[in-house]
Amino acid sequence: MGSDSDLAIMKEAAQVLEEFGVPYEITIVSAHRTPERMFEYAKTAEERGIEVIIAGAGGAAHLPGMTASITTLPVIGVPVKGSNLEGLDSLLSIVQMPKGVPVATVAINNARNAGLLAISILGVKYPDLREKLKAYKERMRQEVVEKACELER
Amino acid sequence: MGSDSDLAIMKEAAQVLEEFGVPYEITIVSAHRTPERMFEYAKTAEERGIEVIIAGAGGAAHLPGMTASITTLPVIGVPVKGSNLEGLDSLLSIVQMPKGVPVATVAINNARNAGLLAISILGVKYPDLREKLKAYKERMRQEVVEKACELER
Amino acid sequence: MGSDSDLAIMKEAAQVLEEFGVPYEITIVSAHRTPERMFEYAKTAEERGIEVIIAGAGGAAHLPGMTASITTLPVIGVPVKGSNLEGLDSLLSIVQMPKGVPVATVAINNARNAGLLAISILGVKYPDLREKLKAYKERMRQEVVEKACELER
Amino acid sequence: MGSDSDLAIMKEAAQVLEEFGVPYEITIVSAHRTPERMFEYAKTAEERGIEVIIAGAGGAAHLPGMTASITTLPVIGVPVKGSNLEGLDSLLSIVQMPKGVPVATVAINNARNAGLLAISILGVKYPDLREKLKAYKERMRQEVVEKACELER
Amino acid sequence: MGSDSDLAIMKEAAQVLEEFGVPYEITIVSAHRTPERMFEYAKTAEERGIEVIIAGAGGAAHLPGMTASITTLPVIGVPVKGSNLEGLDSLLSIVQMPKGVPVATVAINNARNAGLLAISILGVKYPDLREKLKAYKERMRQEVVEKACELER
Amino acid sequence: MGSDSDLAIMKEAAQVLEEFGVPYEITIVSAHRTPERMFEYAKTAEERGIEVIIAGAGGAAHLPGMTASITTLPVIGVPVKGSNLEGLDSLLSIVQMPKGVPVATVAINNARNAGLLAISILGVKYPDLREKLKAYKERMRQEVVEKACELER
Amino acid sequence: MGSDSDLAIMKEAAQVLEEFGVPYEITIVSAHRTPERMFEYAKTAEERGIEVIIAGAGGAAHLPGMTASITTLPVIGVPVKGSNLEGLDSLLSIVQMPKGVPVATVAINNARNAGLLAISILGVKYPDLREKLKAYKERMRQEVVEKACELER
Amino acid sequence: MGSDSDLAIMKEAAQVLEEFGVPYEITIVSAHRTPERMFEYAKTAEERGIEVIIAGAGGAAHLPGMTASITTLPVIGVPVKGSNLEGLDSLLSIVQMPKGVPVATVAINNARNAGLLAISILGVKYPDLREKLKAYKERMRQEVVEKACELER
Repeated sequence: MGSDSDLAIMKEAAQVLEEFGVPYEITIVSAHRTPERMFEYAKTAEERGIEVIIAGAGGAAHLPGMTASITTLPVIGVPVKGSNLEGLDSLLSIVQMPKGVPVATVAINNARNAGLLAISILGVKYPDLREKLKAYKERMRQEVVEKACELER
Repeated sequence: MGSDSDLAIMKEAAQVLEEFGVPYEITIVSAHRTPERMFEYAKTAEERGIEVIIAGAGGAAHLPGMTASITTLPVIGVPVKGSNLEGLDSLLSIVQMPKGVPVATVAINNARNAGLLAISILGVKYPDLREKLKAYKERMRQEVVEKACELER
Repeated sequence: MGSDSDLAIMKEAAQVLEEFGVPYEITIVSAHRTPERMFEYAKTAEERGIEVIIAGAGGAAHLPGMTASITTLPVIGVPVKGSNLEGLDSLLSIVQMPKGVPVATVAINNARNAGLLAISILGVKYPDLREKLKAYKERMRQEVVEKACELER
Repeated sequence: MGSDSDLAIMKEAAQVLEEFGVPYEITIVSAHRTPERMFEYAKTAEERGIEVIIAGAGGAAHLPGMTASITTLPVIGVPVKGSNLEGLDSLLSIVQMPKGVPVATVAINNARNAGLLAISILGVKYPDLREKLKAYKERMRQEVVEKACELER
Repeated sequence: MGSDSDLAIMKEAAQVLEEFGVPYEITIVSAHRTPERMFEYAKTAEERGIEVIIAGAGGAAHLPGMTASITTLPVIGVPVKGSNLEGLDSLLSIVQMPKGVPVATVAINNARNAGLLAISILGVKYPDLREKLKAYKERMRQEVVEKACELER
Repeated sequence: MGSDSDLAIMKEAAQVLEEFGVPYEITIVSAHRTPERMFEYAKTAEERGIEVIIAGAGGAAHLPGMTASITTLPVIGVPVKGSNLEGLDSLLSIVQMPKGVPVATVAINNARNAGLLAISILGVKYPDLREKLKAYKERMRQEVVEKACELER
Repeated sequence: MGSDSDLAIMKEAAQVLEEFGVPYEITIVSAHRTPERMFEYAKTAEERGIEVIIAGAGGAAHLPGMTASITTLPVIGVPVKGSNLEGLDSLLSIVQMPKGVPVATVAINNARNAGLLAISILGVKYPDLREKLKAYKERMRQEVVEKACELER
Repeated sequence: MGSDSDLAIMKEAAQVLEEFGVPYEITIVSAHRTPERMFEYAKTAEERGIEVIIAGAGGAAHLPGMTASITTLPVIGVPVKGSNLEGLDSLLSIVQMPKGVPVATVAINNARNAGLLAISILGVKYPDLREKLKAYKERMRQEVVEKACELER
């Protein structure tokens, strides 16, 4: 993530990875305050065995896009809502990437979905993760049904 | 894709897949005009051997999100710009998914990036695709350098 | 409605229906977390005797549009404001439906108006509901006049 | 409709009504240039046997909302895109009605959907219209399937 | 004003008129809940000796524009911010009037400026009001200078 | 107006004044390129016998607001649409004035309405202008009715 | 700055200048309430030895642009977020200047960055300021690294 | 600039520099397609004698901000309008930089102003450039006056 102020949001991605038993590393890499660290981080991610990168940032959010420009790993971007413009600036700065360098963007502040998207991407390679994801979706379904039953009662 | 009017945009995703030698199927599945076909399509995608789904749609674009709700495959969404609101409606309808069901959203009308994102996702499993993607990025880099040289001359 | 978190908003629609003595059912049907339930719900609504459907959802709000794609009953959509973008995402996801599948969209968070719109639609068939609606409008008028009198005093 | 410049858009609503064999009247009633005519029109609509009103207007589009304030018939609003702001002004002026007076708003410039929404509303009372609407939806479905077949070939 | 909930905002316009010694009437006239009252009010305003009308409303704010359509008095519109969309809906609904029927729109929630604009309009006819306005502006200027002095100290 | 490129838009205001037989002066005064000229112009407008000022500008449109800060005459602002942002920047730069200095803002590019607003303001003082405005509104009404008749035929 | 209400935001610019040991003056100059003072201020800034001007304002923020129109010193604009529209009005009013008169605009409410931009501009002339800026950036880098270490532990 | 497609816009900055006799280099450096080249370029700019950097880019425009993160030279950002969203994405991606790393942002597509801002920044150090800038502003002023004379004739 780009700043420790993003931690409250981004830790939801980490929680998903823990729920699914996926090892991960989490750190702060600021595109703007530590550009070389970001470079190094993105450049060496693959050889360190990382398979998917989740990057969250706010405002003129350059971390996801810059990471995607350096690595060929899939990069998931989480637009973090700042104190003005309702997160629209973060969203557009992450999603509107030019031809050649995509970022897989999820909803504003929705780091949980970044985690789940990472699981579904890893599920292409690891069948057990896909099975766990199916189970997760089934649990979500049941929760809705239970709430519906309660409401209808 | 949601409509044949999206073909001009979405065929760029197909072109990428052809460039990278990735077999694909392309069809029209409208969330709104053929909801059952969409259901069937998304439900059977995995068993038909599909590993990543790219869905493009415009306006109140529900195809990517609905597909993602039915399958556990990674779903990439392409917001297609309609005749008003500059594509903002398509973008928000695709990217702002609720917790539990992510769509990997790319830039408005940027189906080429959807193709490349699919390649990078498949590259997690297929090392040769990742190598091809590295070569592609290197070619992009060289093109920029050549254009820069020409300009500086 | 799409989630139990929408209940605080959507119950205003139910209140209107109670005020007008219209029997109704209320439940949670998530387009994204329970797509099959939504399908089933929309598909069987007519035969269960339902005449108008009110669907509220937030963010990339697909429930109203998907319901409208499955049924031929009139579907009223309530954009529920989420925690960012001021409800603009919900509004555009609901109102910007493609040709062929309309959703009768009301104002952001205005479930009361969804209820009243349902009454006016039912009023086409049931004259007593139209009469009650006229009386309701007359009461609204009087309330304004009373408040105006108080202010002018 | 509010102006003859809206005719190109609004005639699509009339076409739908003709396709479904629903008698209709079409006229120009400007909320701003002929407020009394609008009043008269909306006030007498019910007694003239009208069951649903479709009102299209652009910019600070007051015709749908004002009509809804005067009648208890269901009023469908079509935001017509003007020469700036991409139709956002028309959309917000029509959809963001206060509690008590709903307008059933459809997508920007989407008068065809206004016609179809009118059919689905009338279908609550007239079963043959609902049957025709089902047939219409089935034809839409088939068209998509045919286009898909052609594309897949 | 369109609703008693607008009173907190709109009373600032009244305060200005009192400061300048201009007689005024203030009441609630809802375009949507009391359309006939609005008609009557606007239609008879001139003969009751009113020279400028200030109308404030929120959301799909039709009161200023409808008033302007009925009277030839200058109408000043105050967009009142509602509970979503940051007042953008109110602003566009008031300012984007079609050719032929202008509303003199001021900033969102800025009823004080509506009062001052009324004074400057009346100042065209009543020289003493213009003189008072000059004095007011001079006092504003002095206040800024005093605050600046304090800050610089 | 702020630039000769605004002439195509702003001349519509002049046409209205000619139609109503109101003497006027028209010139180019750029807040940004000729700030002193603007100052001089606004400062001396009253003594030169001017009673209402119409100022049109685009982008970061400061001319109307700055003029209003210097004079106590009523200032009407016309947001001129530039080559991007659909005129939203012009509109917000003109209408969102702080407390103390109002600008009577009309719709984007709607210089005709600026002219008509000037007439209605002058009509407070000059009864013949108000009569002419009534006649103008009556003609508008008739035109709509005629067009409606033609359409209904 | 344009108003004492902007002080809470703008004092961060002053803090930066103090951190870097750059002498500065701070005052309130309202484009709208004290236009002549603004003129005088901007006109005499150069001869008083000022080398860079930072101007912050909200809403229809004219202070930065008007200052830039009067002086040839570099002018940095800080859009101050008001009570509605999320600062978008301030941003567009400051950044969208016409050809010929630029304002160096920073992020909404980001007066700290205005101070740092002033340092980097002055650093073109004063090498010691550039060295201090390098040290500042290095400290920022270290802070991120430390936070990252703490998080990773 | 970030792409050769930006050349049509960005060459206006170069023209300004030529008009003022300022030596410059112009090249293509893509943050996303040549991240290392960008790094190298920004890192070595100071030692190559560059004093101000102008960076233009569109969409998720990261070039200006990333350059500013690497160098301590003042960086001027030009948001280039892409084929959707009217340049709003470019603007927000450039201007909304986090605390610590400012970009001096000018109006959308307004590379001429980027050139002029560079001149005014260099004018802090080089008095002859400030004199030339004063002369340039005087010429602008005269042009407006001449156009005004012609219009008034």
